[in-house]
Amino acid sequence: MPLPVPLAALNELDRDEFIDLLGDVFERAPWIAEAVVGKGPFPSVTALHQAMLAELVAAPADRLTRFLNDHPDLVGPTMCGQILTAESTREQTSAGLDRLTAEQGALLAEANAQYRARFGFPFIICVLRHSRDSIFAELERRLGGDASEERRAALAEIARITALRLVRKVTGPGIPEVYGRLSTHLLDMTRGHPAAGVPIELYLLSQDGSADLVAAARSNVDGRTDAPLIAKRPVPNGTYELRFSVGGYFADQYHPPFLGVVPVRFATAEPEGHYHIPLLFTPWSYSAYRGS
Amino acid sequence: MPLPVPLAALNELDRDEFIDLLGDVFERAPWIAEAVVGKGPFPSVTALHQAMLAELVAAPADRLTRFLNDHPDLVGPTMCGQILTAESTREQTSAGLDRLTAEQGALLAEANAQYRARFGFPFIICVLRHSRDSIFAELERRLGGDASEERRAALAEIARITALRLVRKVTGPGIPEVYGRLSTHLLDMTRGHPAAGVPIELYLLSQDGSADLVAAARSNVDGRTDAPLIAKRPVPNGTYELRFSVGGYFADQYHPPFLGVVPVRFATAEPEGHYHIPLLFTPWSYSAYRGS
Amino acid sequence: MPLPVPLAALNELDRDEFIDLLGDVFERAPWIAEAVVGKGPFPSVTALHQAMLAELVAAPADRLTRFLNDHPDLVGPTMCGQILTAESTREQTSAGLDRLTAEQGALLAEANAQYRARFGFPFIICVLRHSRDSIFAELERRLGGDASEERRAALAEIARITALRLVRKVTGPGIPEVYGRLSTHLLDMTRGHPAAGVPIELYLLSQDGSADLVAAARSNVDGRTDAPLIAKRPVPNGTYELRFSVGGYFADQYHPPFLGVVPVRFATAEPEGHYHIPLLFTPWSYSAYRGS
Amino acid sequence: MPLPVPLAALNELDRDEFIDLLGDVFERAPWIAEAVVGKGPFPSVTALHQAMLAELVAAPADRLTRFLNDHPDLVGPTMCGQILTAESTREQTSAGLDRLTAEQGALLAEANAQYRARFGFPFIICVLRHSRDSIFAELERRLGGDASEERRAALAEIARITALRLVRKVTGPGIPEVYGRLSTHLLDMTRGHPAAGVPIELYLLSQDGSADLVAAARSNVDGRTDAPLIAKRPVPNGTYELRFSVGGYFADQYHPPFLGVVPVRFATAEPEGHYHIPLLFTPWSYSAYRGS
Repeated sequence: MPLPVPLAALNELDRDEFIDLLGDVFERAPWIAEAVVGKGPFPSVTALHQAMLAELVAAPADRLTRFLNDHPDLVGPTMCGQILTAESTREQTSAGLDRLTAEQGALLAEANAQYRARFGFPFIICVLRHSRDSIFAELERRLGGDASEERRAALAEIARITALRLVRKVTGPGIPEVYGRLSTHLLDMTRGHPAAGVPIELYLLSQDGSADLVAAARSNVDGRTDAPLIAKRPVPNGTYELRFSVGGYFADQYHPPFLGVVPVRFATAEPEGHYHIPLLFTPWSYSAYRGS
Repeated sequence: MPLPVPLAALNELDRDEFIDLLGDVFERAPWIAEAVVGKGPFPSVTALHQAMLAELVAAPADRLTRFLNDHPDLVGPTMCGQILTAESTREQTSAGLDRLTAEQGALLAEANAQYRARFGFPFIICVLRHSRDSIFAELERRLGGDASEERRAALAEIARITALRLVRKVTGPGIPEVYGRLSTHLLDMTRGHPAAGVPIELYLLSQDGSADLVAAARSNVDGRTDAPLIAKRPVPNGTYELRFSVGGYFADQYHPPFLGVVPVRFATAEPEGHYHIPLLFTPWSYSAYRGS
Repeated sequence: MPLPVPLAALNELDRDEFIDLLGDVFERAPWIAEAVVGKGPFPSVTALHQAMLAELVAAPADRLTRFLNDHPDLVGPTMCGQILTAESTREQTSAGLDRLTAEQGALLAEANAQYRARFGFPFIICVLRHSRDSIFAELERRLGGDASEERRAALAEIARITALRLVRKVTGPGIPEVYGRLSTHLLDMTRGHPAAGVPIELYLLSQDGSADLVAAARSNVDGRTDAPLIAKRPVPNGTYELRFSVGGYFADQYHPPFLGVVPVRFATAEPEGHYHIPLLFTPWSYSAYRGS
Repeated sequence: MPLPVPLAALNELDRDEFIDLLGDVFERAPWIAEAVVGKGPFPSVTALHQAMLAELVAAPADRLTRFLNDHPDLVGPTMCGQILTAESTREQTSAGLDRLTAEQGALLAEANAQYRARFGFPFIICVLRHSRDSIFAELERRLGGDASEERRAALAEIARITALRLVRKVTGPGIPEVYGRLSTHLLDMTRGHPAAGVPIELYLLSQDGSADLVAAARSNVDGRTDAPLIAKRPVPNGTYELRFSVGGYFADQYHPPFLGVVPVRFATAEPEGHYHIPLLFTPWSYSAYRGS
């Protein structure tokens, strides 16, 4: 995928280049890019995004309804198609969103149909901010809302979907905060220094009992991973388990080690937040916490 | 099962009562009880046990070999029969020893046959001190021993098996230490007092990925369980996972809670030891350790 | 001091013996013991105490005022005289109540005179539940109360003073809870077991910067002290510092040790509570908390 | 004090400028700068320093002895004069090196005289790497060495003294590591985020019972101090106490707070190391450790 265009350069684009770049930020709605094309220069990426959202909100009711209906149903493989550009395939896969059972798929189709029947447009959600479990939970919750609430909720989700798309196309000052982070830090309390060489896995747990590997790494000399376990994308709402394989770290001293794999399980609810989960450990004890 | 006989009362038993009580402590070997019947009074249960073991060790080689061969093979359901009296069914079940897959059963039969071919008697192990995984590991390890080592190992296991049987029949001063303990303690660090009402489960994990529930309880007002999670029996060598369902404890404050189920995983290697595993927690952090 | 009389025996005492035993529980007021002498048998020590308090509360106003005025001023050495029987000298000394500077003594005399002028009786407080600092704080606070509040406050203090006296004279069912406890527990997290042999000191800190040694001990093989650091008396409200001399514990491994003396400072506000303050430590880290 | 000269610029200096800049790096020994003046260009600051040290080591024995003797005695106020340039007054003061009692001063003079009598040159030590206590300890320890050991020790100290002087005069690639760092991080475990607004003091403790304030700060929104508590200088070997005034942080919830001032006491022994001491706390518990 091409590098994002600097905002200063975007402000210099001619009409066709501008529309060519931003025409598909809003689903099948190039008219939004067309409407803002002469309204620059934009002082920040957020200002550009706000201008585009303002066009959407100001649109006549039937145009907005048509726009909402141009979003595909969130069913099966199409579900990911809803918001996915090619580059996000990796994240989708690691979040386990492409692996619905037949039963889950059927449930989703049924709930979707109910939603559309009730509100007149498909269920829209920013998939990158969610796990399978939290998508199902949101769908159930939102089925219980009223029509005007749901129209607002759909627009809020579209704001998030389009912010994520926009920051892949434009960079510069005032970038919307669309990414979260999940990181860790291992400290060997018997020596008062970082613990290097410890294998670390991050799993996304589902209510059906499955555990999808999200990331795997080994702690470096600073006791950290070379890159955060989740970065450059939202942290999907879900239940995670970090598994620290500390058993080999002190292995020459104690056999079998009291602590082999240390699982640390937690739920996230701030996709744009920073989840820093250090582990302070000895052969016989550990502390885990949300740090900063 | 009948209550244990006080040692003082045992010392008063006549010959037939004595043999009737203790004749089956050693597998199909009432001659051991017969040999010690007049050697009392015994000052301690351990002294009685030592006296019985001395008879076994002093027996002629062929009698000892016959004795070892009178132990059943440790295969399938029979395996538990090796050392089990009726009262230990619960423990066996909770340790998961009665649930071998066909493949595991076949492996065990094969290893047993190898062992018997190599050493001339069946593989003997004090099952109550082990999990399925550690029985397999011990069998593999001991297959590599030499003949005199293995004879000693078999006698050591018999000493443990018979000590466990003896303390169910006789009580009083100098009881052999045959039981371990596994307990926990929950402390709410936001209030500086015990955490009551937290559901706690203890699982035995196997290398095949299965998790067998060993005990379930709820923390009381002292932050403890009314009874230890394992008590009045050895703590079988194995890998355990305590699961503390703390999610509801602070639930009105945070939703969804960062910590829902806190798993604490550890391996044990001292069947007669005390494993005390406290959990100190807040909504965002916890410490677990081997305490005392 | 003589052993407490069992409640059952007290219920059998004749009039003179009863008054002889309990006549000085209320300061210079044997009439209270006289008034309850025939009202037994008392089902609990608390019931006996409540009966005596009821006599006091039911007394005519002038008798009550005279009773309050029969309490000595809380000044200098007399201060301790207010509630002290011989056996509590040790506690008084360890709490540092006998060591007022001339300036503190003058301040106390002045505040006492103000109190008496304002309320018509001396400032009464259960000294055993307080440190010097908290006595001064209470005196200042109570000087601001109104007359009826202060009369109630004085009676509440007398209830506590006399409960402490009563439990030294009578024992049995339904003993009032008048004692607190302060204890500790040391755990070596590098080995997962109790830390023995660590010198422990407990100091009471004052706002004037002084630190009075309350207790000193060494951790035993269970990581505890043979007796609680405070027991069989209230824990005086105050600021304390536990000092754990862990420097020698790991000394062969690290020199100079990162942790030499670990001070743990905390304030108490529940004289009848249990303050259990464990220390979990390694050569490079520690955790301290209010446990249970 | 003037900004350090970039190494590239230093390599361009003419002879006089070079000597003018570096002539006083070695105590009263401009001949060392003179000897290296033509030997550049130096690829790194360390290479320059090594070249100067090589001249010193290669000097004839009597010249080296004279050089050592040109160092002032480490006595009283002169002591600091040994290595101090004007800019380090603040550090000296905060380390408490300028405040010797008369008795300490006399002891130091006596020990110094012994040292000089024994080895033929004054006791030389890089004061910035030490506290009063560790200077006394080093002096006592080194008095017990033999002559050749002490000559090596003196040269090693001179290498450290001159490295510290050099990095104030020259900057660029290959700077010797002469500075340490002492920092902290406060985390509120009841909320899972940094604790802002907590007053923090760092004291250097002496064996005579005194406590010298080294630094004071307040935690910022990241739970850190805006600048490290010690930075841009070595961390003098000594015993420190961090005092975290957490009492006000949770004050509306609990009164009086269980934890008011949390003291964390530790000894340092790596002047060029990074001492990062986080505090994880709740109203009822805390953990402190050497982190990274």
